[in-house]
Amino acid sequence: MTEQINVADIQVGVVGLGLMGSSIVAALLVAGHPVKAIAPLADELAEAPDHIKNHLLQCESADLLHYPVEHYLYQLKVSGSYATLADCRLVLECVTERPDIKKEVYANIVEAVATDTIIASNTSAIPISILQTYVPGPERFLGIHWAEPAYMTRFLEITCGNATAVPLAEWAFELAHHWGKEPTLLKKDIRGFVTNRLMYAVYREGLTLADQGIATIEDMDKAFRYDAGSWMTLMGIFRRMDFLGLDNLDNILNNLLPKLSNADNVPLAMQKMIELRAKGTQTSKGFYDYNGSEAKEWDDAFAEFNKEIDRLAAQYPSVNNKFQYK
Amino acid sequence: MTEQINVADIQVGVVGLGLMGSSIVAALLVAGHPVKAIAPLADELAEAPDHIKNHLLQCESADLLHYPVEHYLYQLKVSGSYATLADCRLVLECVTERPDIKKEVYANIVEAVATDTIIASNTSAIPISILQTYVPGPERFLGIHWAEPAYMTRFLEITCGNATAVPLAEWAFELAHHWGKEPTLLKKDIRGFVTNRLMYAVYREGLTLADQGIATIEDMDKAFRYDAGSWMTLMGIFRRMDFLGLDNLDNILNNLLPKLSNADNVPLAMQKMIELRAKGTQTSKGFYDYNGSEAKEWDDAFAEFNKEIDRLAAQYPSVNNKFQYK
Repeated sequence: MTEQINVADIQVGVVGLGLMGSSIVAALLVAGHPVKAIAPLADELAEAPDHIKNHLLQCESADLLHYPVEHYLYQLKVSGSYATLADCRLVLECVTERPDIKKEVYANIVEAVATDTIIASNTSAIPISILQTYVPGPERFLGIHWAEPAYMTRFLEITCGNATAVPLAEWAFELAHHWGKEPTLLKKDIRGFVTNRLMYAVYREGLTLADQGIATIEDMDKAFRYDAGSWMTLMGIFRRMDFLGLDNLDNILNNLLPKLSNADNVPLAMQKMIELRAKGTQTSKGFYDYNGSEAKEWDDAFAEFNKEIDRLAAQYPSVNNKFQYK
Repeated sequence: MTEQINVADIQVGVVGLGLMGSSIVAALLVAGHPVKAIAPLADELAEAPDHIKNHLLQCESADLLHYPVEHYLYQLKVSGSYATLADCRLVLECVTERPDIKKEVYANIVEAVATDTIIASNTSAIPISILQTYVPGPERFLGIHWAEPAYMTRFLEITCGNATAVPLAEWAFELAHHWGKEPTLLKKDIRGFVTNRLMYAVYREGLTLADQGIATIEDMDKAFRYDAGSWMTLMGIFRRMDFLGLDNLDNILNNLLPKLSNADNVPLAMQKMIELRAKGTQTSKGFYDYNGSEAKEWDDAFAEFNKEIDRLAAQYPSVNNKFQYK
């Protein structure tokens, strides 16, 4: 797989043109791919061209385009028929998180494409090792997990299932750099991909501290916003350790690790949310209360912040140091 | 302690004028306090006035000042003599992290100030419950932990020791808002204050994933930079949960918590750093390699990024929702 990658020669298919799918289509067009976009649902088929065009206009106003919007639309074919996927080298599945539906979609994709076409799922919920059993030639199946909006964020998680051929994942990893991403490659399929896994370690500790009355939910949010937030985007967690210096960390870890929460059960602070049927910003209740307009305010603030932080991050060079730890 | 706070009437003392101390002096001056700055070391005494002035010039160029730099310097007295602290309502200790030295410093402070002067330590390493035993009237002793550079960051951690009078900590919490901070108040003194504790939960999980060959150090840094980094400063971790929706979280937690690392011992990825005597950016080795100029480049990048992220965060309103969880 050490071929030269020429994006314009690689046809990519996207199946499922909801919020995420149409955003991914835009990202792939901007990267220079010819894209076949399949909408299995009639509603999506009707609305997708407008949605994709709007995403491209967003890209234009964010100064991400080299050509007029029309140039990219010319590279796009939206269809309700899987047969359109015939010449695709890679097909991305972005349909709803239900294994039964995905299984049916894969059967349709497989029927349309070549036996060596790479098939990837955008799932963040279902193990790749399970999904790939639905596909003849499971070694060509992997996870490519995007963050919204796909044409702006730099996050991308590539995950192998047990049966995935690692060189194919490495090819996807290479390709993702042509999409302007900073991808991560997870060679083993662990439940709760890497980002979730790290975040849930924080949630376990934080919820336990709340249960013990040691810190409030609000204080912990402040600590992350104003302390961790001041370096997270620049450094990540391990370079931050390097930056603060590694002296004395064995003492600190030996002291602190045995004190951290090992809870296996859902902490009370979270159980309380479940009992209250609190669902977060989209309802009126969560860890915080929300009134009618606040959910929308948070949506808008996040969209805006995401754009800004990405612009800010781009001012700091990508880290290309040789990686030392093996 | 429900008095009206008038910053200009509250004399604050700072003892220890190294990097952190002189930066804290600048922060207090900018907030409007008259400040008595004590340098127990001759070197610091000689250099502190210049350092503090430079910090103020930094503030000026970052547009943080309402008056010319001279106005603030007029409110400052730098001295080698503890007697200067006589009229201080609050004294902040920022000397080196050695209990024996801090003990001596407290004896000098106590001799100079009133019996109800509040004394606070900037320690991030030594439990407040231990330090306060060195002070007659330990109920007036607490932790006020700043982040560098103190006049720019919004993080501030106020920590009670076992003997601290909580109303005094609440007064300090109130006062810190006049310093432009978003303080957290930790009513119990736990080893590895709240931020550290939450971060070490991440480190435990991340180092264990590295040991298992599931994800590389570099990939985990990317995941935090580009995923968590895209919302951390805006939301913190629990509002992020609200934002994504709390549906199904009991299932996710029940599945995931038993799979998280419960390691008590220093993970191998870290032990390797210790064996290599790798100390991070300031030497050539850490989780990443560094050449001669890179440590300085990271210092500069962090200073600049910190300023930018703070400016960005300030565009999003502080979160004042009523807090629901008790």
